[in-house]
Amino acid sequence: MPTFDDVVAAAARIKPVAVKTPLIESPALNELLGGRLFLKCEMLQKTGSFKFRGAYNAIKQLTEEQKKNGVFAFSSGNHAQGIAYAAKLLGTTATILMPNDTPAVKVQNTKNYGGVVVQYDRYTESRDDIGAKIASDNNLTPIKPFDNEAVIAGQGTIGLEVADQLNDLGLRADILAAPCGGGGMLAGIAIALANASPETKIYSSEPEHFDDLQQSLARGEITSNPPGYRSICDAILTPEPGQITFPILKNADVTGVNVTDGDAKAAVKTAYEYFKVVTEPGGAVALAAFLKGKIDLQGKVVVAVVSGGNIDNALFLDILSAE
Amino acid sequence: MPTFDDVVAAAARIKPVAVKTPLIESPALNELLGGRLFLKCEMLQKTGSFKFRGAYNAIKQLTEEQKKNGVFAFSSGNHAQGIAYAAKLLGTTATILMPNDTPAVKVQNTKNYGGVVVQYDRYTESRDDIGAKIASDNNLTPIKPFDNEAVIAGQGTIGLEVADQLNDLGLRADILAAPCGGGGMLAGIAIALANASPETKIYSSEPEHFDDLQQSLARGEITSNPPGYRSICDAILTPEPGQITFPILKNADVTGVNVTDGDAKAAVKTAYEYFKVVTEPGGAVALAAFLKGKIDLQGKVVVAVVSGGNIDNALFLDILSAE
Repeated sequence: MPTFDDVVAAAARIKPVAVKTPLIESPALNELLGGRLFLKCEMLQKTGSFKFRGAYNAIKQLTEEQKKNGVFAFSSGNHAQGIAYAAKLLGTTATILMPNDTPAVKVQNTKNYGGVVVQYDRYTESRDDIGAKIASDNNLTPIKPFDNEAVIAGQGTIGLEVADQLNDLGLRADILAAPCGGGGMLAGIAIALANASPETKIYSSEPEHFDDLQQSLARGEITSNPPGYRSICDAILTPEPGQITFPILKNADVTGVNVTDGDAKAAVKTAYEYFKVVTEPGGAVALAAFLKGKIDLQGKVVVAVVSGGNIDNALFLDILSAE
Repeated sequence: MPTFDDVVAAAARIKPVAVKTPLIESPALNELLGGRLFLKCEMLQKTGSFKFRGAYNAIKQLTEEQKKNGVFAFSSGNHAQGIAYAAKLLGTTATILMPNDTPAVKVQNTKNYGGVVVQYDRYTESRDDIGAKIASDNNLTPIKPFDNEAVIAGQGTIGLEVADQLNDLGLRADILAAPCGGGGMLAGIAIALANASPETKIYSSEPEHFDDLQQSLARGEITSNPPGYRSICDAILTPEPGQITFPILKNADVTGVNVTDGDAKAAVKTAYEYFKVVTEPGGAVALAAFLKGKIDLQGKVVVAVVSGGNIDNALFLDILSAE
């Protein structure tokens, strides 16, 4: 299990290359909501999502031999970009297995960062089988997107920064909510806040029908999503919480909520209108949970982590055009 | 003339309420450009533009009597929002005279921040005559948008932050470029950088046909724009540099460049694609100047101040839809 010290060490490791992303609020929106809502802006992180933090922290700790052979990752897109760019900065190469319904912008960006992309069908093919073969054939070191201690510690630096940034304003968060796919970011943040802001209550937000963490927390054991559903929140459509992340989240007493694709779209538009930032639907589900009243913020200081901004242009235009 | 100490004092005054806006770069764009380009993200400032800095610094220093009567401003929009919100925070009221072609979002936001809005026709009516009457009839204290020492000192805090943020990365800017309307922001930044980063060369960027600063610098005296032109860069369409700002900019050896509306639109799209932020055309002209090669950045560390993000939805959609 990663510790608070691992998160602090990760923060030192990524400091020279990562963005300390801003924590911003909108006075106009706060007035409408009746609480003080801060966005942690991970779309402004290098590669457009928080994933760069964990990727860099993990690859930085590989041996010279491992770096000579290269790394491997499967990813719906943001982890891929984070891995590809971190690999490039650290002088190694990344091979990435991506679903073939990944937004084009994420595939192209991964290639632009020097990554080698292999695609598969997320609904009919086994990611794990294809991935295992590619990695073993080429002697690559796999970097899992969430069930990896160095990745979790890297994502946890978000929690340190939030506590630090609120402290500068003389504030503490009553609530922090974050999007949840496999739970790597949320687990890292939970480890960070347990020390840096123990009074902050933590919520996860997931897409409707992909609320595997919420269901797992309710049952006390890892529970998979039912098959047959789709969502526009491509960044966080994992089948179930991780073997490492779930115990951390359970122990941290995280509360799960879920939102519809329509709620996520409305949050993307609100982030654009009130905060002047570009978000992707999966990145906006925690903001959506606050906006839709799934998490009460009346009279409170709350933080919504917005995890990424890598949205396809056509979808963004569609969302901004809607009434 | 405002001094470096005035800028430092302004920074202390605005610290509890203003955002220290992020300075971000895009590795992918840097690779394309062949230099290291940072954006200073003033669209993330309270009220969506840098104007809040100067407005708060000015109103904060008024007497109790002045605050009891209220303040007055004319503005194409961003100064209005900054003044209205600063007035609200400081317990006074703001009356704002705005051109009737101001983007609807700016008019509405000014009202939302508690401002009283009066509109006029920028092409046929005298702003100064209408404004003087409103102010004197109601005993209001005018806060000019750029020819005001406290406003200039407030905007100068951008320069302090840029120098500080680059210093954290072990860098110094070879060049800083900023949009220029009346020159208040640029004058404040010039005062700040003369002390905080004297080796940084300063450029102004203006819309084509509204390059009054560039022309004034070339002739060594205040020169007005020719009549009869229009531009989508509504935030910075001032007729000429200010009486206070021009001598500061001339003394700082600022170099002027100008860009077309098409260049500004392309910069808005680049800011969206590579930096995940929302900019308005007038706010993006310094970025446009770098992107179009009007200012050379090969092998350099450069900063483009993006001054605001208050763009009408229809125009933003139009820009993002263009090939």
